[in-house]
Amino acid sequence: MTVNVELICIGNELLIGKIQNTNATWLAKQATQVGANVRRVTVIQDTIGEIASTLCEAVERKPQLIVTTGGLGPTFDDKTLQGIAKALNRKLEVNHKALEMVKQRCIEYARKRQMPTEIEMTPPQLKMAALPADTEPVDNPIGTAPGARLNLQGTVVFVLPGVPAEMEMIFNQTIAPLLRRAAGDDIFCERSLFVDDIFESRLAPLIDQVMIDNVGVYVKSHPLRSENKPHIELHLTATMRKEDKPSEKLAKAAGELMVLIEKNGGMISAGI
Amino acid sequence: MTVNVELICIGNELLIGKIQNTNATWLAKQATQVGANVRRVTVIQDTIGEIASTLCEAVERKPQLIVTTGGLGPTFDDKTLQGIAKALNRKLEVNHKALEMVKQRCIEYARKRQMPTEIEMTPPQLKMAALPADTEPVDNPIGTAPGARLNLQGTVVFVLPGVPAEMEMIFNQTIAPLLRRAAGDDIFCERSLFVDDIFESRLAPLIDQVMIDNVGVYVKSHPLRSENKPHIELHLTATMRKEDKPSEKLAKAAGELMVLIEKNGGMISAGI
Repeated sequence: MTVNVELICIGNELLIGKIQNTNATWLAKQATQVGANVRRVTVIQDTIGEIASTLCEAVERKPQLIVTTGGLGPTFDDKTLQGIAKALNRKLEVNHKALEMVKQRCIEYARKRQMPTEIEMTPPQLKMAALPADTEPVDNPIGTAPGARLNLQGTVVFVLPGVPAEMEMIFNQTIAPLLRRAAGDDIFCERSLFVDDIFESRLAPLIDQVMIDNVGVYVKSHPLRSENKPHIELHLTATMRKEDKPSEKLAKAAGELMVLIEKNGGMISAGI
Repeated sequence: MTVNVELICIGNELLIGKIQNTNATWLAKQATQVGANVRRVTVIQDTIGEIASTLCEAVERKPQLIVTTGGLGPTFDDKTLQGIAKALNRKLEVNHKALEMVKQRCIEYARKRQMPTEIEMTPPQLKMAALPADTEPVDNPIGTAPGARLNLQGTVVFVLPGVPAEMEMIFNQTIAPLLRRAAGDDIFCERSLFVDDIFESRLAPLIDQVMIDNVGVYVKSHPLRSENKPHIELHLTATMRKEDKPSEKLAKAAGELMVLIEKNGGMISAGI
């Protein structure tokens, strides 16, 4: 079954070009590898209004899964849960399971430093445990801020922290198995050819022909150099049921492409 | 004046996690540096429907500028101009200026290789010159596919190629001067402090206090390590008129933060 996924990445640091959105690339790759179809990534600023409206718009497109990253920490600019509460028209309230999770992290930290473990939670720590009503906290084994999980009009929404190691661990533990089950027998395969001495406009009809002859195989050309000695990657992908042998289908399509390209004066420089 | 900008990045390669969206980061940084406010980045697949609907949604948010990247080449999966034509409800037609640009690149190439310069345009080459009616082509000095520029309900839309060197050159030549003029006297300043041995939840009220005392300065905390020895970047930014001396305002706010942090047991490890 096709499992459509949307990612929503929250953080001004992404929109001022301070950091690469490696979270989106990592999540997109992982979700694709387990057979899902990532349809959209939306990157937005740390404002409650933007978070709420972006989530509502995404839910209207009816993906099976939405993953948000960022904005779960203790500081004022961490507004994701407030944005989601606004989208749901629910109040934020301290969630007892989430509070236990936050406390647990604080106690572990105190223990390691041989400090007293009788800890009074501060308002910023309580903030991390305040979820919209009827939302399930998700344990964050290596960070203080828990994630969250909710259902919204048939879409499962996971709310993950922005710190890459924390986000990756929660994805691997909780979301990947779920996606794998939902994608069923679908698997993703890919294969690349690198081509020299032939222009993209010359390759275009050859790609068209191979795609017509190899249903389910998608071929995309990526010019890797922009001057007078063309060097182009042809990237072949297929997401299909294992029993339909996507890997063999890609090999066949790649073989046909190579023959056509060499007939038309191109050179295959490498294939993987 | 605040100039709101949205970026729309088109390409399956971004949504399968094959490549980092370095175009979005680069554009966001450049636009921010010249005083603009990048509000959103949307990454979508190579389908005409997605391109059309994403453009329409972005225009409804009324940014002054939208920049799209990708999907201008000669192959079947390059669908940006078709998507824009659908959004505009206009036909694609060969644009004579764009055709001249494509021809020019082909002739230059032939000349360098001492090949005949009497060139018959192929359908994939003509495709690159087919723009929606009433759209202005934008010269691409280092690639074959021209960009495009149009106005949509008061928003200026620039349609750029996805090859980074081509995109960057067109941005620098054509869009940056325009943004600079629109942003007027607004400039962007930033400054970082690196802090050890204090938790983000402990920093939160200190940041709040400094932001209340320094209007226009935004302080964002980025935990750079996720275990038991906290290491946090505090990133201070301001976009304001040059005469309001944003750089001095950041220095003052950073100074106040340092004092508060050291009072509360944190260590400043570095400041830039």
